[in-house]
This record gives sequence, C-alpha cells and structure tokens, in this order.
Amino acid sequence: MEDNRYCVIMAGGVSSRFWPFCRADRPKQFLDLLGIGRSLLQSTYDRFASIVPKDHIFISTHEQYVNWVMEQLPDVPRERILAEEQRRNTAPCVAWAAYHIRSIDPNATMIVTPADHLVLQEELFRKAALKGMDFVDETPSLLTLGVKPTRAETEYGYIQVEGASKGTIQPVKTFTEKPNRELAQVFVDSGEFFWNSGIFIWKVQSIIAAIRTYLPEIYSRFETCVDSSGHIDDSLVHKQMSACPIISIDIGIMERATNVYVLCADFGWSDIGTWGSLYHLSQKDANENAVLCGRASCYDSRKNIITTSNNKKLVILDGLEDYIISDSENVLLICRKDEEQRIRQFVNETKNRFGNEYI
Amino acid sequence: MEDNRYCVIMAGGVSSRFWPFCRADRPKQFLDLLGIGRSLLQSTYDRFASIVPKDHIFISTHEQYVNWVMEQLPDVPRERILAEEQRRNTAPCVAWAAYHIRSIDPNATMIVTPADHLVLQEELFRKAALKGMDFVDETPSLLTLGVKPTRAETEYGYIQVEGASKGTIQPVKTFTEKPNRELAQVFVDSGEFFWNSGIFIWKVQSIIAAIRTYLPEIYSRFETCVDSSGHIDDSLVHKQMSACPIISIDIGIMERATNVYVLCADFGWSDIGTWGSLYHLSQKDANENAVLCGRASCYDSRKNIITTSNNKKLVILDGLEDYIISDSENVLLICRKDEEQRIRQFVNETKNRFGNEYI
Repeated sequence: MEDNRYCVIMAGGVSSRFWPFCRADRPKQFLDLLGIGRSLLQSTYDRFASIVPKDHIFISTHEQYVNWVMEQLPDVPRERILAEEQRRNTAPCVAWAAYHIRSIDPNATMIVTPADHLVLQEELFRKAALKGMDFVDETPSLLTLGVKPTRAETEYGYIQVEGASKGTIQPVKTFTEKPNRELAQVFVDSGEFFWNSGIFIWKVQSIIAAIRTYLPEIYSRFETCVDSSGHIDDSLVHKQMSACPIISIDIGIMERATNVYVLCADFGWSDIGTWGSLYHLSQKDANENAVLCGRASCYDSRKNIITTSNNKKLVILDGLEDYIISDSENVLLICRKDEEQRIRQFVNETKNRFGNEYI
Repeated sequence: MEDNRYCVIMAGGVSSRFWPFCRADRPKQFLDLLGIGRSLLQSTYDRFASIVPKDHIFISTHEQYVNWVMEQLPDVPRERILAEEQRRNTAPCVAWAAYHIRSIDPNATMIVTPADHLVLQEELFRKAALKGMDFVDETPSLLTLGVKPTRAETEYGYIQVEGASKGTIQPVKTFTEKPNRELAQVFVDSGEFFWNSGIFIWKVQSIIAAIRTYLPEIYSRFETCVDSSGHIDDSLVHKQMSACPIISIDIGIMERATNVYVLCADFGWSDIGTWGSLYHLSQKDANENAVLCGRASCYDSRKNIITTSNNKKLVILDGLEDYIISDSENVLLICRKDEEQRIRQFVNETKNRFGNEYI
C-alpha cells in the first residue's frame, strides 16, 4: 500500500428513512442491517483496510456518535475520529478531513466514503479504488466512483459521461440528482449515465484548491485554523465549522468544478437508502419474509420486512403481505412497503405531536 | 348489609386468548382492559363492596398472583386471599372457599364471581345479587345469575328455563355449553335461554352438601382438613387440593344437581372473552380504531384494536384494517380480527418452538 494514501469514512448521518429501526441516537451505519455480524460502519472499515494502511483510516462523525465508533472500531484511536459538534452537511466535513490529513502529509491522496453503503464485490471495489488513486496522483482532478445502473432508480444521483465504458475514467458531462421515473429510464437506456456512489478520490491539495475556488467562505474559515506551515489546530475548528454554510460536497464542488472525473465501475453497490432496497438485499424465508433482527412466526403472510430492536423479540404475523414491521423500544411502525416514502411524514408528525421522545 | 353474606372473587385464571396482551404472569383480571383506571379485579371488588361487607370479600387465586392481588387491593389482607399452589379448575377452588367461609360462619351465604367480567349496570346487578341471596337464604338451592342474551354468541354457555322472564327465579331445565351459530340463534329466538354468567349464589351448607353428593372425592379430601367442630386447617388444604380431580363447578355440580335455579337478569354483562368483545366494548376513534394501552397514529387504518404493555409506546399504522396489534415486552402479535381463534394455535406453536419464554 502506498504511504500517502488515506481514507475518510463519513459516519455522522441520521437516517430517518429507516425510522424507527434507526433512531437519532442509533443511525443506520451502526446497525448490522444485513445480519452479517458486522455493522455497516464495520464493513466499510474492513473494506478500506485492504486499500489504505489501517492507521490512515479516519472516521468523521458527530460527537454524539463517538462512543458508537469507538465501540465498533476498537482499532481506531480517538485522535483518528473527527467529531463535529454540529451537522453542516458534507462540504465542511470533507474540508476538515482534508486539512487534517494535509497536516500529516501534504502530498496525501484521500478517498472519502459514506459509512453506510453496501459493496458486494469487494475485490472489484478495491481495484477501482486503487485505480482511482493512481489516476488522481497523476492528474490533478476530483474523481467520483460511478456505478453502472441496473434499474431506473429515482432515489440516486446520475452522472453523465461521454463514451462511458466500464473501467474507464472519463470527464463528467452532467450531474442529475434524483430524476423522475421516465427520465431515469432514459438515462439507463442511453448507456451514458452512471450512479453517483458518493465515494470520492482526490489529492488533499486538489480538494483544498477546489474549496478555495468554489467555497471561499469555508476556505477562509479553515485558513484561520492553520499556521504558516499549513498545520491545522483542530481545537479552533469547531467554532469555524459552526459558522460554515450548510452545503454538500456534491453541490458545493462536484457540480461546479471543471476537473471532475468519474471512474465507471460496477462492484455490486447499494446505498441501502430505502426499506425497498434493504428488503431486496436481505435474506428471505420461503414466504419471502425478511427478518432482520428478532424472531418471527409468519402465518398467511408474505413479502414482509421485519425488524426489532432486540434479537429475542418474537413477532407473530397473521395475514399480512408487503408490509414493513419495525419495532423499536418505544415505537412500533407497521407500514405498507409501497408507502415507505410517507415515513418522513410520520416522523415529522410524531415530532410535532410528541417532541423528540420517539425520534 | 346482612352479616352472613360473603363474596369470593375467583382471580386465578390465565387468559391465553388475549396473548400477548395478557401473559401467564399478568392475566386479564389484573389489567385495565377498558382504560377506566381500574383493573377488572378492582372493578369487580368495587362492585361487590356495595353488596357484602368489605371484610367479607375473599380473593381466590393462584399463589403466583398473590402480589398482584395485594398490590391492586390493598384493603384485602393476606388472610383473605386463598392462594392455590396448583390449578385444579373451579370446583376445588369453590370447595376451599366454601369450607373456609363455613369455618367463619356456618350460616354463611356466598356469592362466587369471576374477577374478569364486565358489568355495565352496577345497580341492576346489585339488586339481582341481593335478590338471589334472599332467595337462597329461604330455599336450599344453587343459584346462577343468567343474562338475557343479546346476540347468538357461540362462546357462552346457555341455560334453558321454563317460562323465563326477566327478574324471576326459575329452576334450570338444561345447560348447553358453546352451541354452534345456528343453535345459538334458535336459543336466542326461543326466549327460553339465558347466558350462564358464571356468577353463583348459595349457602355454604348447600354447596358443601352438593359437593358431598356429586364430587365425593373432593368432599372427602376437604373433610380431612376440618376438625370435629367443622373448622378448616388451611395448612392442610394444599396437599389435598393437589390430589383433587380437575373439574369445573359447572360440570361437576351445576349440570348435575337437582336444586339448581337461575335468576333471569339483564345488567349489561360481558365476560370480555374475546378480542372481538373487547373491541366492541372499547372506546374508538373517528376511524373506529381502539387503542387500549399506548399511543397510536393511524394512517389509512380502520377498525383495529391496539394494545401495548406500556402507556408511552407509540404505534404508527399505515394501511391496516380489522387487525389486532398487541405489543408486549418480548412479543408482538399482528393478527386479523376474524382470525383470533387461531391465537391459541400461535401460543401453542410458540411454546413448542421456544418454551415458556414468550408465554
């Protein structure tokens, strides 16, 4: 492994779409969603431990989750956890990680990844990541991993590339966030579009240069935290971050910069962003019921997805088809699978009625 | 109130039909099923406290539930709780109570009632009970309170009387336990049939004489526990009871004795024996959902009955109609209302798969 390569796992998100299975104090990345014995964060860590040196892996998260991270990743010392006090979306988060790593190695190359995605073909992924890092080492660029779409998914972002073919690295032509069904189908049929995995590769110098150009407020705030040799004083960061604009790295940089490339890959990827995708990925019984956590006895019941907050909880179903049954400590949700987009509404109305007790 | 009148509340039953709302360690009589702020046992106690002197009320139960009784009825001292070590159905239970009360007052009249029934018209009930006690004081008889049927219920026992009319006391012609739908309808239409409420009135002398005649084994076992003056030594009872035949007072005595009468009454009675009857009796929201315990937000959902083991648990329903949703600590049941007769099967299969963990 190259000594100048670093990984940042972003593990600070809240996942209200999976409420109440995921709660504000226990978001998706810390759960073993697929029943494999490792949380999504742990699986992500394992994946990158074969790509960069283990002690080059940083975890970016919210301070609320530091204990989760330390418990799940005992190999990661506290100083490699970048804990934010407030949520400012991904651009300030990436900026901090880039400045922090640049302090350690001004020539560093970094790969940034969400903590809560699934990769089925780890070896293909590893090869793509290494290829991407080789590329940015030679070409001052901002690279994103694109995934060959397998369906007209409306929940993903799409990246258009000219003359796309798997394995190649191409300049990005356009970004389109969450197209409607018809447009998504056109994208897939055209062969020119890849899903935006949200996994980015760049040299710290390149991303800091892009922040300077496209997010000057964030740039100047972080510049107040570094000394003349470029070394960051992390103790100054919180105050500056709390004043940073709330903006994603996609909107703030990737959709605006001119040196953005995509590595067109195919490694069995999912962001596990919906109950539908989770159901799709989960093991199912003979009646196509997926029991993620807990025990279940299903009578005249098919195609349900069942989660509990406790492996010992027993769920008895009679006469249900195509439902989400998610039992948490103090919340039970029973919702038709094809209505899962309403869960955000349920969360909001619950918040309005009861405050944060159930969130 | 007459000094020789006593009440025995039978509070030892297990109610597997309401599983998992009711559990082996928390049966129906100890729950506030109707959300009135008093458990069924407490409501029953309140009802009889206006019929017999308070310190003449005895609670018959299983030793497993003694703490429940003492907690819910702090006025009842331990010595008025008759706690069985084993379940032998109602005949041995009634025998013990009769012998015990006879020791206190050989001339006693007793009224025996299940702890878990509902009476809506308390004053009519009180009048019926007093009338019944006056009757058995004059006529050596075994009296049951009959309830004018309002529907062709198949879960109740029916008592046929000749020339029945409300308010009268008549000899019983026949008993029929749980007729099928057609027969139940014939019974109701005939006007000759009343529901057997399971509430009995007799002098202790009369019931002990009947036990001697119809259940001689139980009689002779209890006779070994009394001294020459007829005083019972309760410490000897457990051993004898554990050898008694398991038999109900209905089958052992009422269906065989020749001096059985019924008081034909109508006081808004239910044994709350099914989820259907509980739903029927419960308060409902605008969409006819009944939330017995817990909080609920119902979207596109109608005619469900929801219980939790915790007033703070929140249940979110989307797209459910005519279901039972019963969440207990470690069991969640979701079952169509019209399939509730299968709950016994679910309980048995759960016991076979997991032992008593969930029962």
